[in-house]
Amino acid sequence: MNIISQATAFGGMQGVYSHESEACKCEMTFAVFAPPKAINEPCPVLWYLSGLTCTHANVMEKGEYRRMAAELGLIIVCPDTSPRGNDIPDELTNWQMGKGAGFYLDATEEPWAENYRMYTYITEELPALVAKQFRIDKSRQGIFGHSMGGHGALTIALRNPDRFRSCSAFAPIVEPSTADWSAPAFEKYLGSDRAAWRKYDACALVSDGARFPEFLIDQGKADGFLDNGLRPWLFDEAIKDTDIKLTLRMHERYDHSYYFISTFMDNHLTWHAERLG
Amino acid sequence: MNIISQATAFGGMQGVYSHESEACKCEMTFAVFAPPKAINEPCPVLWYLSGLTCTHANVMEKGEYRRMAAELGLIIVCPDTSPRGNDIPDELTNWQMGKGAGFYLDATEEPWAENYRMYTYITEELPALVAKQFRIDKSRQGIFGHSMGGHGALTIALRNPDRFRSCSAFAPIVEPSTADWSAPAFEKYLGSDRAAWRKYDACALVSDGARFPEFLIDQGKADGFLDNGLRPWLFDEAIKDTDIKLTLRMHERYDHSYYFISTFMDNHLTWHAERLG
Repeated sequence: MNIISQATAFGGMQGVYSHESEACKCEMTFAVFAPPKAINEPCPVLWYLSGLTCTHANVMEKGEYRRMAAELGLIIVCPDTSPRGNDIPDELTNWQMGKGAGFYLDATEEPWAENYRMYTYITEELPALVAKQFRIDKSRQGIFGHSMGGHGALTIALRNPDRFRSCSAFAPIVEPSTADWSAPAFEKYLGSDRAAWRKYDACALVSDGARFPEFLIDQGKADGFLDNGLRPWLFDEAIKDTDIKLTLRMHERYDHSYYFISTFMDNHLTWHAERLG
Repeated sequence: MNIISQATAFGGMQGVYSHESEACKCEMTFAVFAPPKAINEPCPVLWYLSGLTCTHANVMEKGEYRRMAAELGLIIVCPDTSPRGNDIPDELTNWQMGKGAGFYLDATEEPWAENYRMYTYITEELPALVAKQFRIDKSRQGIFGHSMGGHGALTIALRNPDRFRSCSAFAPIVEPSTADWSAPAFEKYLGSDRAAWRKYDACALVSDGARFPEFLIDQGKADGFLDNGLRPWLFDEAIKDTDIKLTLRMHERYDHSYYFISTFMDNHLTWHAERLG
């Protein structure tokens, strides 16, 4: 693991690191905030998954998570959203496919299958590295994210309920199989057999029997992607007749930006901390 | 005034605006955060001046001021650091001169004198525009800034003690006339007669009799610019034998970045709010 930068913030340390990823077969960058408490004892970990076009840096710079994470003693890990580098396949003029648009899945179609293995990267390779390099309490992990990263958080929590104790999302894509901005990417990454898409779709996972105790979702009503992409009400419908609890809060005037995310960041961190003990 | 963007945040509104500046003879951009309270009543204003290489956007994205400003009912105005545009003189390879390096002074030397009039812009033109467009309480204004913008805040407060009730700075340049990274710019902007530099130098202003009741300065000890540029102890020396109060706090491990600024942002906002009533 290489140290790209480290800076003191709120008594803790905001670092940016890189490593050669086996899953993605390229160098991957990620950010970790370690709260002051992590100097003396293992701390719970919160995984934050970012949205389309983002890297590790967007939430690190604009998410405003450090003050509360320092107070609550939470380690925050912010991975990148796709493999990177000149040798990685991409669609240069399409922000919904390729670099910055990994959708937290393991691609099976060419030319994507070799590098676009973000599900394995986020659920196996990076956790192993982080556990080795930082003092984390593996028994206390939560996951959250924004937009495409909200989709990542929901699906990864539903598929790994024994690993994560808490899950929340800001403006998540809850049914990517049918959303305008994700269905074309799913077809390219996973092929035309829609059965293979279901394990990467929160609504389909619930329909197929996956369970997680409860979710918190915040959504702005002035979000331009609400009706044709995000549609959190579909998730609310999907969990009906299950024992999954969902707190879905719709907010007047808020859009899809980090101004929205940062406004509700404290709420989410507190919510996770209560469940992580 | 043109609206470039507006987004709801913490119940208030973060906007970015532009206008044709008479002082700088170019289009200038600035950011304003209006807290929820500003919908119903005039609110106090805090002017934040940014450092070298910055625009209005750096503190808007990384400064983490909105939560506390919303709570305290403070309007935050974040101007740019220099004139901008293709027709504006610049030194392309020198980040300490020209665009991004206005030093909050009115240049008198060619080719800078026509556009680099940031002192007039910040103290006259922009306040008049902001007072016209936003519900501000002119009798309750404070000023703060970072690095070159800390220099701007200190000098503007010292020269306008009737306008501002409060002043603070993060890692300010307190004696730009003698600092490695500002003296060459002062010579180009103001000429070789150092007497003309004194009204843009906080230590010289105090020595020449300028007064302001009190200052708060935070400074990181791991700041790479501390010894050859910032040197806050010079300001501490300058105010000895005056009735100016200075709270100078030196912080182990903190650097010059927005990780440092955001850590102490709440402190500064609270400090200003107490003095703005």
